[in-house]
Amino acid sequence: MRSLVIFYLCYLLCLGLGVACVVCVCVWNSRWRGGFAWDRSGLQFNWHPVLMVTGLVVLYGNGAVLYRIPLTWGQNKLPWKLLHAALMLLALILSIVGLSAVFQVHNAGNTPNLYSLHSWIGIAAVALFALQWVVGMAGFLLPWTPTSLRKLLKPAHVWLGGGIMLLSVAACLSGINEKLFFVLRGDTPYSDLPPEAVLANTLGVLIVAFGLVVLKILSSTEWQRPDSRPEDMAYTPLLQEEN
Amino acid sequence: MRSLVIFYLCYLLCLGLGVACVVCVCVWNSRWRGGFAWDRSGLQFNWHPVLMVTGLVVLYGNGAVLYRIPLTWGQNKLPWKLLHAALMLLALILSIVGLSAVFQVHNAGNTPNLYSLHSWIGIAAVALFALQWVVGMAGFLLPWTPTSLRKLLKPAHVWLGGGIMLLSVAACLSGINEKLFFVLRGDTPYSDLPPEAVLANTLGVLIVAFGLVVLKILSSTEWQRPDSRPEDMAYTPLLQEEN
Repeated sequence: MRSLVIFYLCYLLCLGLGVACVVCVCVWNSRWRGGFAWDRSGLQFNWHPVLMVTGLVVLYGNGAVLYRIPLTWGQNKLPWKLLHAALMLLALILSIVGLSAVFQVHNAGNTPNLYSLHSWIGIAAVALFALQWVVGMAGFLLPWTPTSLRKLLKPAHVWLGGGIMLLSVAACLSGINEKLFFVLRGDTPYSDLPPEAVLANTLGVLIVAFGLVVLKILSSTEWQRPDSRPEDMAYTPLLQEEN
Repeated sequence: MRSLVIFYLCYLLCLGLGVACVVCVCVWNSRWRGGFAWDRSGLQFNWHPVLMVTGLVVLYGNGAVLYRIPLTWGQNKLPWKLLHAALMLLALILSIVGLSAVFQVHNAGNTPNLYSLHSWIGIAAVALFALQWVVGMAGFLLPWTPTSLRKLLKPAHVWLGGGIMLLSVAACLSGINEKLFFVLRGDTPYSDLPPEAVLANTLGVLIVAFGLVVLKILSSTEWQRPDSRPEDMAYTPLLQEEN
């Protein structure tokens, strides 16, 4: 019972931090960056942080922890698999639209693409996410995939899932940091910590906290769906092989 | 046997990536940033990336995966605990000296401290690392700590350990990205991807790869020291409690 209560507290924290991230990134870009448009101007750029934080971090993280909700355990896994795949597809689409926003703005202004470390990490996160979705779909949803292949794929899918979360968090933080150095100059430099900087830094802290809670939920063996726990899988622990 | 081979391949990758990170950050700062000094000039600043990458990422990550090396399993745990604590202490000292380097340079030039998101995440990583070291020392090394308290502390210690790794990686990436926007201007802007930018971006990619390998080693139940595996601990799995 104690473990169940702690899980739901973590899950509520995950939901609350996710909502806080989305609210923060929307307020930042609507109140301080002039709002949104889709006209290849700076206002189109503002969709980039909003869609990446909403898709690649918040929706992605919520999709990742779906199987850990004990409410879903007593039931057939298939509907939850479909919901996991659907949430991840929505997250992937938002991320791709978020990337298109910035590529179009850059191309319209003859600004080079994909030179900064932020962009390298971000594009790697989205590319790995797309690969993960396609391989996950083929491996776990198509009925003719052999069980032996699923068992082989699963630890890689779980590990890459956590890895993409790490890349997403790192890409968002470097992006927010870079953006603030770009836009907060002159009379209100970043170093004076004007209200916009405090809000956007807070967004960064919330993203990190969200990532930590998601990784905590994912890494706790006791919160895994019972039919997914290591002792139920066909893996032989290292030492058992040794003896 | 297969699991053992995969572990040692991952561990070799971890060692190799760690060495590559240290070489890259040293070459970057000695060849392109003018080398090192301790005189409150820009040359003192160059110690900051070198010490943070070496301490907070590479030594920290290697200290974290120490218990996973199967060679250490058949033996008394105490010497390995001492080595874990010693490696982590060295990592913490390097990180603190790395922070001092930048604080002294900032103070000498009247540059404000701790305003950027990079600095917020970095200082949080080092503060949590210091807390983790002190609590870990008191909880797991002092002989009069009750076993019940150790069992309670352990999952928090393991989770925070992974969390600090995530913070360290995010702090390093945002720092490298920020530094390159600061220093690559004029004739050789960052957007032209001069050799320095390619090297420093590659350093960022190596740091991410190192972090992913460390988190993979830490998260695999089959690679945990046998007396530390969940089934050997006094935790009751969630579902068992429910039934």
